[in-house]
Amino acid sequence: MLRCVRKKQIAVIGYNKDRCTDIASKAAYEVGKEIARAGAVLVCGGLGGVMESACKGAKENGGTTVGIIPQEEFSFANQYCDIVVCTGIGYARDFIVASSADAIVAVGGGVGTLIELGVGYMTKKFIVVIAGSGGVADMYGGKFLDDRQCVPIRLAKDARMAIQIILAENK
Amino acid sequence: MLRCVRKKQIAVIGYNKDRCTDIASKAAYEVGKEIARAGAVLVCGGLGGVMESACKGAKENGGTTVGIIPQEEFSFANQYCDIVVCTGIGYARDFIVASSADAIVAVGGGVGTLIELGVGYMTKKFIVVIAGSGGVADMYGGKFLDDRQCVPIRLAKDARMAIQIILAENK
Amino acid sequence: MLRCVRKKQIAVIGYNKDRCTDIASKAAYEVGKEIARAGAVLVCGGLGGVMESACKGAKENGGTTVGIIPQEEFSFANQYCDIVVCTGIGYARDFIVASSADAIVAVGGGVGTLIELGVGYMTKKFIVVIAGSGGVADMYGGKFLDDRQCVPIRLAKDARMAIQIILAENK
Amino acid sequence: MLRCVRKKQIAVIGYNKDRCTDIASKAAYEVGKEIARAGAVLVCGGLGGVMESACKGAKENGGTTVGIIPQEEFSFANQYCDIVVCTGIGYARDFIVASSADAIVAVGGGVGTLIELGVGYMTKKFIVVIAGSGGVADMYGGKFLDDRQCVPIRLAKDARMAIQIILAENK
Repeated sequence: MLRCVRKKQIAVIGYNKDRCTDIASKAAYEVGKEIARAGAVLVCGGLGGVMESACKGAKENGGTTVGIIPQEEFSFANQYCDIVVCTGIGYARDFIVASSADAIVAVGGGVGTLIELGVGYMTKKFIVVIAGSGGVADMYGGKFLDDRQCVPIRLAKDARMAIQIILAENK
Repeated sequence: MLRCVRKKQIAVIGYNKDRCTDIASKAAYEVGKEIARAGAVLVCGGLGGVMESACKGAKENGGTTVGIIPQEEFSFANQYCDIVVCTGIGYARDFIVASSADAIVAVGGGVGTLIELGVGYMTKKFIVVIAGSGGVADMYGGKFLDDRQCVPIRLAKDARMAIQIILAENK
Repeated sequence: MLRCVRKKQIAVIGYNKDRCTDIASKAAYEVGKEIARAGAVLVCGGLGGVMESACKGAKENGGTTVGIIPQEEFSFANQYCDIVVCTGIGYARDFIVASSADAIVAVGGGVGTLIELGVGYMTKKFIVVIAGSGGVADMYGGKFLDDRQCVPIRLAKDARMAIQIILAENK
Repeated sequence: MLRCVRKKQIAVIGYNKDRCTDIASKAAYEVGKEIARAGAVLVCGGLGGVMESACKGAKENGGTTVGIIPQEEFSFANQYCDIVVCTGIGYARDFIVASSADAIVAVGGGVGTLIELGVGYMTKKFIVVIAGSGGVADMYGGKFLDDRQCVPIRLAKDARMAIQIILAENK
């Protein structure tokens, strides 16, 4: 009998195209590469910036990528998405990106990324940010988002470390 | 000819039933009362805690209340909601609460409230928190949620002040 | 003690602006008027066509109107909405319109209206269509949408009859 | 340079677990198998009945399967989903299933399936139903859902024919 074992799904969140820095873009590429090497599936918001760099990193290293986009049409997704989920629900799709993750890695990011961190925190996902990647990753890394302090926002010094601590936790 | 002028819609967000404190509950009641007195419509998540206290404050002072609930059935709404919007979309309804507001007042709150603050910040709503009400209101009051610093999270010493600065801004 | 009793919420669905006929527009106006006279709250998708005519009919007869729009910005709502719920989730807001109704009245309509009828049918709402109003109202009136046959799509000869049978059922 | 070419995504919709017949289950298995053989990705609602049978058919023939579930937790998905998208938005996820498809195949089904057909029709997807599979597939096959008549609901005598006409159209 065939019994399917779902692979780990790791979400990568962060800066969109408008505000992505070179540092964040390179870090995102590395995160995508490490997710691919770990045999996990990369989940993201499917657009530009950190999302696109991470997808590129995964695809160039044999990985599988899923883009969960706000729009209703496939054409908005970046070209490195193997599978595109066209939600049509606008930025409320941030909830779906975070809910569809076994673990979350943040690279830089603005308030949209903070919302995704919030959803991950609320649903008790394992969350890691790349130190030095800027934006909300650096603002909230090492902290708790509310005073319940139920899920730490962990800091990792680089992509390799981020994926390692996720794999160690999710065995 | 009849020309309708939509009243201001002010969202009240904060602690749910599980974690609401007496201080937050009283502050929320006052916020509801001030919204009613200002002739605005109170919008909220329609459940317990801060949402219920605010609705009660509005209803006991002649106001109108709208509860935008996560569930598909009316019965989950608190009894002080005049109008119930049954979204059925779970906690993604947080987006709708914030989007449906001309201004937002936060009273205490956990990460769900932070998500609503984030949506308000992203969509450039006027946001005020009640100082001393606890939770994310006190954690984020007076700060910016990301490094774009586009919308300040304003602090008000009490409900009256909160509604006054909203009305002054939204004339 | 003050105990709020939520008023009945009746959804009006049907042709949007592009395809609305004079017959449907007049029928929608009458439906809005009858909802107002019955003391119920009119819920709709908040845009043009049948939605706008129904809201106008309700407002010119002292009623209360709620527009649940696909967009994130208030400005898309028609001018006869007292309360605007900005969902930002696109046409998935059809689910919310139907879920937020104690009963549903259809006036003409295309496939979007059929989707709303489907959601009403699935959640076992009381559904009435105005006979002769065209579109899916006439295509599906008097029928069941699937072979479970759990909720009839009732036919009413006019707006007054539609609201009468709803009130008789929802006492 | 690596240029990713997204594979076709074909949605399979139909009876859920409660009402699935043996005939529909077998037809769904065959649809999944043909999608896999065509090198396309199977997209579905991720739960039981037709969704599970189709996923099983795809997995046992080397295909890739995506389950877009109403719930927020992975555990609700059937065991044959390679990738699970946890929407948390309840049955409004029907919109996402249809939007995320290049083409749609219906096998039996109740009103939920009709809603998905409606979304596919609204967004002008290529839609095929399996003749003789029961439910809304047989009720609406060969017809138009509204009087604009913009998208025919095509009938195919079996799974192989369904996928053939989809591939012929989507070259």
